[in-house]
Amino acid sequence: MHRMRFFSDNAAPVHPAVMAAMADANTLDTAYDGDGLSKRLDGRFSELFETEVRALWVPSGTAANCLALAALCPPYGGVVCHRDAHIQNDECGAPEFYTHGAKLMLGNGDGAKLTPTTIRSVIDAIANDVHRVQPHAVSITNATEYGRVYTPDEVAVIGDLARERKLGFHMDGARFANAVAFLGCSPADVTWRAGVEALSFGFVKTGGMNAEALIFFKRELADATLMRRKRAGLLLSKGRYLAAQLIAMLDDDLWLQTGRAANAGAQVLAAAAGDRLLHPVEANEVFLRVTAAEAAALRAKGFDFYDWAEGEARLVTSWDQQPAAIAPLAEAIAAL
Amino acid sequence: MHRMRFFSDNAAPVHPAVMAAMADANTLDTAYDGDGLSKRLDGRFSELFETEVRALWVPSGTAANCLALAALCPPYGGVVCHRDAHIQNDECGAPEFYTHGAKLMLGNGDGAKLTPTTIRSVIDAIANDVHRVQPHAVSITNATEYGRVYTPDEVAVIGDLARERKLGFHMDGARFANAVAFLGCSPADVTWRAGVEALSFGFVKTGGMNAEALIFFKRELADATLMRRKRAGLLLSKGRYLAAQLIAMLDDDLWLQTGRAANAGAQVLAAAAGDRLLHPVEANEVFLRVTAAEAAALRAKGFDFYDWAEGEARLVTSWDQQPAAIAPLAEAIAAL
Amino acid sequence: MHRMRFFSDNAAPVHPAVMAAMADANTLDTAYDGDGLSKRLDGRFSELFETEVRALWVPSGTAANCLALAALCPPYGGVVCHRDAHIQNDECGAPEFYTHGAKLMLGNGDGAKLTPTTIRSVIDAIANDVHRVQPHAVSITNATEYGRVYTPDEVAVIGDLARERKLGFHMDGARFANAVAFLGCSPADVTWRAGVEALSFGFVKTGGMNAEALIFFKRELADATLMRRKRAGLLLSKGRYLAAQLIAMLDDDLWLQTGRAANAGAQVLAAAAGDRLLHPVEANEVFLRVTAAEAAALRAKGFDFYDWAEGEARLVTSWDQQPAAIAPLAEAIAAL
Amino acid sequence: MHRMRFFSDNAAPVHPAVMAAMADANTLDTAYDGDGLSKRLDGRFSELFETEVRALWVPSGTAANCLALAALCPPYGGVVCHRDAHIQNDECGAPEFYTHGAKLMLGNGDGAKLTPTTIRSVIDAIANDVHRVQPHAVSITNATEYGRVYTPDEVAVIGDLARERKLGFHMDGARFANAVAFLGCSPADVTWRAGVEALSFGFVKTGGMNAEALIFFKRELADATLMRRKRAGLLLSKGRYLAAQLIAMLDDDLWLQTGRAANAGAQVLAAAAGDRLLHPVEANEVFLRVTAAEAAALRAKGFDFYDWAEGEARLVTSWDQQPAAIAPLAEAIAAL
Repeated sequence: MHRMRFFSDNAAPVHPAVMAAMADANTLDTAYDGDGLSKRLDGRFSELFETEVRALWVPSGTAANCLALAALCPPYGGVVCHRDAHIQNDECGAPEFYTHGAKLMLGNGDGAKLTPTTIRSVIDAIANDVHRVQPHAVSITNATEYGRVYTPDEVAVIGDLARERKLGFHMDGARFANAVAFLGCSPADVTWRAGVEALSFGFVKTGGMNAEALIFFKRELADATLMRRKRAGLLLSKGRYLAAQLIAMLDDDLWLQTGRAANAGAQVLAAAAGDRLLHPVEANEVFLRVTAAEAAALRAKGFDFYDWAEGEARLVTSWDQQPAAIAPLAEAIAAL
Repeated sequence: MHRMRFFSDNAAPVHPAVMAAMADANTLDTAYDGDGLSKRLDGRFSELFETEVRALWVPSGTAANCLALAALCPPYGGVVCHRDAHIQNDECGAPEFYTHGAKLMLGNGDGAKLTPTTIRSVIDAIANDVHRVQPHAVSITNATEYGRVYTPDEVAVIGDLARERKLGFHMDGARFANAVAFLGCSPADVTWRAGVEALSFGFVKTGGMNAEALIFFKRELADATLMRRKRAGLLLSKGRYLAAQLIAMLDDDLWLQTGRAANAGAQVLAAAAGDRLLHPVEANEVFLRVTAAEAAALRAKGFDFYDWAEGEARLVTSWDQQPAAIAPLAEAIAAL
Repeated sequence: MHRMRFFSDNAAPVHPAVMAAMADANTLDTAYDGDGLSKRLDGRFSELFETEVRALWVPSGTAANCLALAALCPPYGGVVCHRDAHIQNDECGAPEFYTHGAKLMLGNGDGAKLTPTTIRSVIDAIANDVHRVQPHAVSITNATEYGRVYTPDEVAVIGDLARERKLGFHMDGARFANAVAFLGCSPADVTWRAGVEALSFGFVKTGGMNAEALIFFKRELADATLMRRKRAGLLLSKGRYLAAQLIAMLDDDLWLQTGRAANAGAQVLAAAAGDRLLHPVEANEVFLRVTAAEAAALRAKGFDFYDWAEGEARLVTSWDQQPAAIAPLAEAIAAL
Repeated sequence: MHRMRFFSDNAAPVHPAVMAAMADANTLDTAYDGDGLSKRLDGRFSELFETEVRALWVPSGTAANCLALAALCPPYGGVVCHRDAHIQNDECGAPEFYTHGAKLMLGNGDGAKLTPTTIRSVIDAIANDVHRVQPHAVSITNATEYGRVYTPDEVAVIGDLARERKLGFHMDGARFANAVAFLGCSPADVTWRAGVEALSFGFVKTGGMNAEALIFFKRELADATLMRRKRAGLLLSKGRYLAAQLIAMLDDDLWLQTGRAANAGAQVLAAAAGDRLLHPVEANEVFLRVTAAEAAALRAKGFDFYDWAEGEARLVTSWDQQPAAIAPLAEAIAAL
């Protein structure tokens, strides 16, 4: 019995096409990001996004997020994010480290989604004087920490607010593949066309090994970020193996195929879960209402997952989990 | 014509055994550093060093160096290093970023080697009051930026001074393999037995892809460093592929074999260079006195290398360069 | 018509005894903190607190608070404080600046008072792993931002919790004088005897000009703080004028006399306010329920104060406001 | 016997006019920098400098310097300064703290004066790539740490270079009064007309108590600096007493009168010192060649001064030292 791990999409293996691309890159080339593969990134991502972008590889999503925040917010500023955001809860203060002490300003919203209303309620409460940290940016996660997806329209109204209030706008797309797979839109629609200036474009959860892309739609932010990337020890000396991963993922829209596969698995679980569902299932995460006894019963059958909170379980499906691998869990849930 | 790149050992490919180990790791496992491979690192490195150590993977040498410095030096302190040290010149201020603004205090010494005398001349000039940044650590590079190697005795006298002055002691071992290959000693002799508290143990230049090891002989420094590693975006979510690299390198002392191979290539060049040599060749770097015309002539023959300074060329040999790959360059140098 | 300002105790003048002491200090002396007055601080504050302490002058309460937090919490840690705390809302991110990015962890409690229960609810929700910032300290304000006072017993149960959880313990005593005046206890009872390790002891609001004291009951924290104070540009070159202020304030317990005077004024207002009071009045702040029209009416009579929130006014009494200065406002409130 | 202290101009008392102005300010007013006096600073300094400036009080010269550097240089950048600069040697890493880790890049020059040549030799050695910290600003001290003065022309050629290389330009004017007194020029000539963008204008050494001015000729830098000043705990709550000092100093050019007085004292010593002088005496510092025995002899007569280096003594004259106070030391030096 295998493929019974629903703990995290980070536990999944690397896609064979990515492994193959890394093997292909295993030749002599220039160090850092001077290699032929790294130099292709701007072009490849510009094609995907239908506009000129700057694209940098980084080895982790936290690095992508926090380099973006450092580009958008000064040390004495604040970043509005949802109170359940990954940057607030799961990065051990990396935003504060990279921004040199900017403050995260926590907003509300169902399913870890901010709205213009919840953002305004945060920033309008801040007197505009030197005693209060002033907001300089907004960061949203798409798909969110609860597997919810912002539509292009939902992003665009936040983008409008950001522009109006002169706030930078970042999207944490650790599960951007799952979001776009759900939306069926152009990647451009849910990002720069909706006002996003910087995107952490995740590839690791969707089949990569250790390469994420940091995309700047506001291209002038990239140059300083190159310095910050180096300064953070993130400019790996054999960067070509990271670039190779990203390019393999872009070829034939592999990132989107794998995103769809993971989403499909989650839908199977969602159908089985019925009214146990705590959130609509839009991406590859399923949050269930389960008693401790029920959780134990599922684990006894070999399924591993995360205890989100008391009475709540988080199940994450991965790109490599075939229907046959999902079915037993779906059945077990239905049988609870 | 191939293998004519002597620009950097970072340009070399990844060793096949490392690639194979990464492929073997391409199965389901726990995320971050909770996987089975990552958990073996403390043990494997403790065996190698003949003492209990804490060993953390990190994706770059800069990250290893700067996490070590942050563990050894407070924000208001200083780190004595050679004025030609990598941490001073080639990391875009990463030490200052990770330590939150500690000051590098620059010492002298032939071949980028500090000595107790040159260290004392730095620290004894600093009045012990609150107006001056006080030294808190020493960092040396072994092998150095000029391919010179500190012997265990040379390290030990620095270690004695460090202990006497209550300074932390870090070794940047980006080319530790080359140093140990030259010395023929136990890795323990040139590190903790000589007073080193933290070691950046490089594997990328010697055949790895993107995994270096940060070794704490002073083990109590590791716990806080785990937090700092996460906070810097360096705790990669699929860390098992980094651990796999390190373990493959430790197996059968592959790291040392590849270090020896690179060193052997450098010796071939050194023999050809004669009195053009600017520094004794002990590791895998060869510094030559060449005119601009001579440098151009070598490049015209297809050899690539780094212009170190006016009239000086740096040639770096790599683990994968067979004698047949070295010979043409040796001949070309001899023929200048 | 004068003395009608109830906006802030920072608007009050400097006590004549403090001005006189500064004039007396206007002679030749050693720079920085090498002067005779600065050297007396440890002794004078040790007497007051009935234990050996280290005492440093600093020019602002924010500086005192944040140097204390930097001493108690590493960059990768967190400080539990009330969500209405001054350090969270009124210092423009100074805690993050001084601690190099530590996170403030916000708790609840009536009157801006934390309790062991509300602290536990913050820290018990934090999984003990490297993904979450871990709590390293607790900071409380006494008197609080709502003019409430922690009793020695209330502090002590927090101190017990801090010790149990290995958390540093800081008290922001910007209005410590008002708190002690209310309590009538020994300063020791409400600080180190209750577990407080570092105290920001405010003197400016109670009659000083620009000198606050940072008191370390955990004395070993002082040496590093001396470096941090210098490094922050807070070691004023003519520090004797700050030391003079503190000593003048300690002489004859002037700080306590002025604290009592301010508190007495607040009681007059409280009596007049009746059920308009939003919080019990224990120190020198009075929070009133007022309509916009009522607030305007008070201002029309020449009284200035702070609009705290919609329908809420904050009135602060100062050390120099004699009953005759308070009476007109009391009457105006009663007449609303 | 009095007034025999030549250790530091920080040891001198506060000018009576400044004390009087502080006493006059001892009335009710708005807190922080909302008071009537603080609001006059922009205007008063604009008059003095014959152009529109932004002027902020700060309580120390280190604070002024480092806020200026933070405004001119990003965390990943570098500031070129003389290797004997105060910001490098005497501020305990405050530049690194305020800039979040920028690197000081050390240049040479007689008398602690940089020149375009020595600045170029620093910055031209830095390869323009992401591995090296790139220079973003130049900082010079006028009068220098050796009491030397840059002329308007000498500043202007540095200003030209700064503009050409897109470097910010800061002047540490801790002894600006002494420099202008020596030059006899308009303050404008040696600052903004010569390209200076930010000036730390010192008042404490020339008769103030604890107020320095940070002047932005490049006015758009001021707004962010207001946030940084607050965030550093430097926005004193009773700021009016600092503003009062500055205004008293500007009235009747008191700052310049006191600067001239101190300079005059130094000239008396210089005349006596003859060929013992290590540097031309232009401001209020005199560096003498003295043996240990000679130094001891001077001290035995009651004169206090600073041992600068072996065989070198630094004598600093202050605004309040009348000729009668200087004469005995001049005689003692002449008699050595």
